[in-house]
Amino acid sequence: MSRLTIQDVVDHLIKPVGQLEQTVDRLLVGDPDAKVTGIAVAFMPTQRVIEQMIEIGANLLISHEGLAYSHHFQPEILEQDPVFQTKRSLLEEAGIAVFRFHDYIHRYQPDAITAELVRTLEWQPYVLEHQQAASIVKLPAPSSLGDLAAHVKKKLGIPYMRAVGDLEMPCERIGILVGYRGGGSVAIPLYEREELDVIIAGEGPEWETPEYVRDAVHQGKRKALLVIGHAESEEPGMAACAEQLKTVYPSVPVRFLRDEPIFQVLL
Amino acid sequence: MSRLTIQDVVDHLIKPVGQLEQTVDRLLVGDPDAKVTGIAVAFMPTQRVIEQMIEIGANLLISHEGLAYSHHFQPEILEQDPVFQTKRSLLEEAGIAVFRFHDYIHRYQPDAITAELVRTLEWQPYVLEHQQAASIVKLPAPSSLGDLAAHVKKKLGIPYMRAVGDLEMPCERIGILVGYRGGGSVAIPLYEREELDVIIAGEGPEWETPEYVRDAVHQGKRKALLVIGHAESEEPGMAACAEQLKTVYPSVPVRFLRDEPIFQVLL
Repeated sequence: MSRLTIQDVVDHLIKPVGQLEQTVDRLLVGDPDAKVTGIAVAFMPTQRVIEQMIEIGANLLISHEGLAYSHHFQPEILEQDPVFQTKRSLLEEAGIAVFRFHDYIHRYQPDAITAELVRTLEWQPYVLEHQQAASIVKLPAPSSLGDLAAHVKKKLGIPYMRAVGDLEMPCERIGILVGYRGGGSVAIPLYEREELDVIIAGEGPEWETPEYVRDAVHQGKRKALLVIGHAESEEPGMAACAEQLKTVYPSVPVRFLRDEPIFQVLL
Repeated sequence: MSRLTIQDVVDHLIKPVGQLEQTVDRLLVGDPDAKVTGIAVAFMPTQRVIEQMIEIGANLLISHEGLAYSHHFQPEILEQDPVFQTKRSLLEEAGIAVFRFHDYIHRYQPDAITAELVRTLEWQPYVLEHQQAASIVKLPAPSSLGDLAAHVKKKLGIPYMRAVGDLEMPCERIGILVGYRGGGSVAIPLYEREELDVIIAGEGPEWETPEYVRDAVHQGKRKALLVIGHAESEEPGMAACAEQLKTVYPSVPVRFLRDEPIFQVLL
């Protein structure tokens, strides 16, 4: 067994940023001094992901989202909930530590979640700027919204996405907003400020950015929105985190564990 | 022209609840003393809805959501935004008043938005309880999740919905959560407390209730979720509001204006 501890890996992950005072990122469960038998990395610490990591003998789960179906970890709310209790018991019995790795990886320079989504879409050469909450891409030639959506679906391997706008509209300047940054306060001002044709976002409330884009289109303005899903926008960054850990700890088994798409679309 | 003023209609709408101290509901734009030429009712005050009401000569728009693509009306944030400016200018030029009718209609006893969704789904005889944030329905006989989804799609006339769970799962006890109540803090505790098989919700963050249901299903527990869309869950209630106004003001033209579904699904 390696002499590497859970805390050693956590320290490695937070080092590029330094300790944050306000953060949801911490060891949610587990012993920081335990020796690492293997590392699993995931977008979400789902029941399936935890079962898979037990099968492969890993005892450290690095997950982007939390354990308690909420941005803030408040396990007391779910104290009596059988779904949460089953998951927590499984973690305890298996001696698994879970480190939430959300704020730190978004604070890497550039945001490692966004940067890896851009890389997966093969748009790295076209990045104009990595901003804190968005990356701005200018394609070498305009692509129709429909073709752009098909490209994104293919590169990410996702079964569907939701769109607002005219599929024939030419798109050149693109804003990439991962996770929940598709909300209006982040996304809406970006269209004007960066003269964007289209925003590709994880998710956000339906009555904010989507309705803004709908109105813009009805006014004859060239704007569009592709909503690809929260997990779908952030999984590439977590998969890249696993790849990076493999090179740092070559003697430790490291695996990225992907769950199924969260929704079935019923047409 | 009728002697009915904008304020008269607003007073009628808020009367069943009484003036709320804390509310987003108010006349967002327009003159409360202007005479009503016609009333339009909508889920969202979109550009298209406003153009339609100008065509029919209505000057009062009663809309469930706000004008500025946000739950809280902060027009100063969009002061320089051309989409918002175009819409606001159009409202001013046409002399249209917009009354946001959100909190009051949800405070009717029972919540008139939820009650009308239940009625549209033809489940009124099966209501066990209208709670503040949810209505609980027990079907006379179990229906598979897939059949239930097909029923909802047909009754609401919606092109798609998103589901978590096994389509073969029998569903009998249903929680109905309109709008954004699909979020974890409202929806998750309801499954246990009301022994629900399935929740039908407008929308909510993807990493909350959907992930809870995914884990439950993977643990072998009988739970499911149907996410039908925010507008889709609340439009029946606003359409019923228009019908009610027709009977109260028989000499005033009243129309419910429905926009298209906000998203195209790209498969």
